[in-house]
Amino acid sequence: MAEFTHFNEEGRAKMVDVSDKPETARTALAHSSITVSMEIYDKITNNEMKKGDVLAVAQVAAVMAAKKTWDLIPMCHPIPLTGVNISFSWEQDMDENYHLYIAAAVKTKGNTGVEMEALTAASVCALTVYDMCKAVDKGMVIGPTYLVEKTGGKNGDFKRDEKVK
Amino acid sequence: MAEFTHFNEEGRAKMVDVSDKPETARTALAHSSITVSMEIYDKITNNEMKKGDVLAVAQVAAVMAAKKTWDLIPMCHPIPLTGVNISFSWEQDMDENYHLYIAAAVKTKGNTGVEMEALTAASVCALTVYDMCKAVDKGMVIGPTYLVEKTGGKNGDFKRDEKVK
Amino acid sequence: MAEFTHFNEEGRAKMVDVSDKPETARTALAHSSITVSMEIYDKITNNEMKKGDVLAVAQVAAVMAAKKTWDLIPMCHPIPLTGVNISFSWEQDMDENYHLYIAAAVKTKGNTGVEMEALTAASVCALTVYDMCKAVDKGMVIGPTYLVEKTGGKNGDFKRDEKVK
Amino acid sequence: MAEFTHFNEEGRAKMVDVSDKPETARTALAHSSITVSMEIYDKITNNEMKKGDVLAVAQVAAVMAAKKTWDLIPMCHPIPLTGVNISFSWEQDMDENYHLYIAAAVKTKGNTGVEMEALTAASVCALTVYDMCKAVDKGMVIGPTYLVEKTGGKNGDFKRDEKVK
Amino acid sequence: MAEFTHFNEEGRAKMVDVSDKPETARTALAHSSITVSMEIYDKITNNEMKKGDVLAVAQVAAVMAAKKTWDLIPMCHPIPLTGVNISFSWEQDMDENYHLYIAAAVKTKGNTGVEMEALTAASVCALTVYDMCKAVDKGMVIGPTYLVEKTGGKNGDFKRDEKVK
Amino acid sequence: MAEFTHFNEEGRAKMVDVSDKPETARTALAHSSITVSMEIYDKITNNEMKKGDVLAVAQVAAVMAAKKTWDLIPMCHPIPLTGVNISFSWEQDMDENYHLYIAAAVKTKGNTGVEMEALTAASVCALTVYDMCKAVDKGMVIGPTYLVEKTGGKNGDFKRDEKVK
Repeated sequence: MAEFTHFNEEGRAKMVDVSDKPETARTALAHSSITVSMEIYDKITNNEMKKGDVLAVAQVAAVMAAKKTWDLIPMCHPIPLTGVNISFSWEQDMDENYHLYIAAAVKTKGNTGVEMEALTAASVCALTVYDMCKAVDKGMVIGPTYLVEKTGGKNGDFKRDEKVK
Repeated sequence: MAEFTHFNEEGRAKMVDVSDKPETARTALAHSSITVSMEIYDKITNNEMKKGDVLAVAQVAAVMAAKKTWDLIPMCHPIPLTGVNISFSWEQDMDENYHLYIAAAVKTKGNTGVEMEALTAASVCALTVYDMCKAVDKGMVIGPTYLVEKTGGKNGDFKRDEKVK
Repeated sequence: MAEFTHFNEEGRAKMVDVSDKPETARTALAHSSITVSMEIYDKITNNEMKKGDVLAVAQVAAVMAAKKTWDLIPMCHPIPLTGVNISFSWEQDMDENYHLYIAAAVKTKGNTGVEMEALTAASVCALTVYDMCKAVDKGMVIGPTYLVEKTGGKNGDFKRDEKVK
Repeated sequence: MAEFTHFNEEGRAKMVDVSDKPETARTALAHSSITVSMEIYDKITNNEMKKGDVLAVAQVAAVMAAKKTWDLIPMCHPIPLTGVNISFSWEQDMDENYHLYIAAAVKTKGNTGVEMEALTAASVCALTVYDMCKAVDKGMVIGPTYLVEKTGGKNGDFKRDEKVK
Repeated sequence: MAEFTHFNEEGRAKMVDVSDKPETARTALAHSSITVSMEIYDKITNNEMKKGDVLAVAQVAAVMAAKKTWDLIPMCHPIPLTGVNISFSWEQDMDENYHLYIAAAVKTKGNTGVEMEALTAASVCALTVYDMCKAVDKGMVIGPTYLVEKTGGKNGDFKRDEKVK
Repeated sequence: MAEFTHFNEEGRAKMVDVSDKPETARTALAHSSITVSMEIYDKITNNEMKKGDVLAVAQVAAVMAAKKTWDLIPMCHPIPLTGVNISFSWEQDMDENYHLYIAAAVKTKGNTGVEMEALTAASVCALTVYDMCKAVDKGMVIGPTYLVEKTGGKNGDFKRDEKVK
């Protein structure tokens, strides 16, 4: 039998070692949005969707998704979150479309950041709105989804300079 | 296009921020129970249930459920548990019914309490007993389920004064 | 080396074989409840709980838990649910306590029943109410939790004759 | 003690009953995208990202997320998927930005559609690309994410008329 | 802006389409084993392990893992299992080592086989035995783990000719 | 009604209390392997498997499984992992069989070790290779799977003296 050779590195995906990073307070804020028709806007704001109160359900889904981020994003470290807050605002454009803006703020005390948790929460929030409303119209569009700001950690803070259109 | 206004707070469910709470040793003890017929009592204690050893399976289910509490209770913080212990006792009442009492004790070192973990473990323990025995009789009744005691955390300890009937 | 003997059955827990059961429409209805103080009742109904709209969050938690039942109850078969509906009612007793009654109705088309899914949904609904309100008072009591009715399957329907106190 | 009144419907979120919908073959196709800098484009295509082969990991994440959709989107029915396929294409714009387009195609044989599974797969694919590359630049933008096409089910097919910008 | 080109296939991992495969009864049987010291053998069979009844816990873990296979093996189709049965046997070799043999039998009615579910159940069963006993000795060895037999499906049955050493 | 007696300990499985163990840096290294035919070896190394790039998918599966160990192994404590790395090597034996060796290295900073995480990652890696290749040949054999080394914790380090055949 051939000799046992040393293990190589040809397969390369890995969850990088963060053991030596300090445990610090960290926050991240992500935005997403979903563009809906006037009919959907009316049904959401009047609470007339057959599946239930759209924003209430989406908010719960977003918080739960933030906690599951490590199980969705393969190389993401598991971190015990200390706070998640989801908020909404509406905006109407000149084409009679309605934009629901979603802000997901996440906090932790750990050795990696919570950008992925905030982005995942915002994304699942928008997906849940889609699910609750898709019986009315499947043409809704989700995004853009992006990081607005992060604080904490040795690599310094991040703050997006301009609004994403 | 209308201006982008600030995010409001009309949607309100959130995982409250516990970043500033100190990490302390915490314990919680919860009780639940399930009332079963004499036939079920006999089959459990003689290990004659077709699905297997009822209490052994229920105990494992309870420990695993304690670890999953954060994924079941939407606004519950994820906390790495350091110990879970499930124990049982039997009591017969004058109507020939048998009560299986379930005690779930949970420990952690974290910045929120483990009341929900203990209550979830006790509840899933009782549900598992129901599942293992329901081929014999579906009339079993679960509960009351309640917190008996908690220690640790800034809000002080909790100790229930009297037994719940 | 000793001979390889046949596998025995001393370990006995198993997920029993339901391959030969017919796929039929099945429903189950379970009840649970949680007893709360007047202060909690007021805060729930006036939507003043710090963690958010209690019943909205509990309802979502219950539906999601129904779908996860197979992952909580070890010997429970996985079944694709076709519908879950959670409803509430309040009742005040003479001791100034308030009882929130929870009804969980579950439907499927499958080869085993959905009793466990209905019982799990009702239990997690009550646990979520506890979590959302426990900052006010930890003395809340959950239950009794029990099956009210089931239909479908070869073993016939089940209907509880009297109310559980 | 007050009489036990009938359960009301004030809490309203529910997983709607699809028991009577026929089991048919269903497909859905969703698109998402992520806009990255030239440096990230180069590192992805030359396989130089520290966390590993970005598209390979994102593809696996997308397939696994499709299977977990029912656990992320609260009122979404669990459906056993029969196929998931993720593909990519690159496009460079005049501002030296690179757009990675993601297509997620999902199939099943069931009584509800797989739009949410396709949208969730596409979203988690984009989120995973973000995670694998965020050490280089946190300014990446995800989306738009939208349904391109669905077939099967009584409500007829859906086909988006024009490309989403 | 450059033209939008068609999606390519350079990323290639996929959950292959099984929509056209017929739903048939399927079974699979897998074996694994774990080799332990005499001290561990004694403590298992006398139920003296500090963490509890080793085989009872391992059996429950195996059944639960079978149900989660689709969430562990990325390109594996989700299938609703109809039965899982785990059994054990002991064998002593001439070096005073004890081999615990594990057999995992899985059944379903679906359009793909359950080989992975049987192999996963057997593997997690052995891992759980390791976990329950590792405080005594970390030198235990797991395996070989292999498929013994499968039935059902268009590709014909599989039956291993000889015992794996 | 009979008096309420104290809870006994006849049910015994528990997640042992590690609250008093110190939080230290911990590592574990586990090996597994899978023996495949020459045809499978050729198809893996030439990337010709229909389900995709076998080692890339197996690597991702292994990292994700490491993070889920607490949910698979009932009495295993949840620990936030800080790093996971999977590597491979091939060896051909004189019978024209090919052995794929798998090494799983896991790190954390916690109050229990990560042996189970490393063993679970290695096992799921091998299972995933099996799944990706089983359309070609179901005779592949997994294992032996064993701990090679661990460091950290009060019980001292572990290092296997000799290679497991």
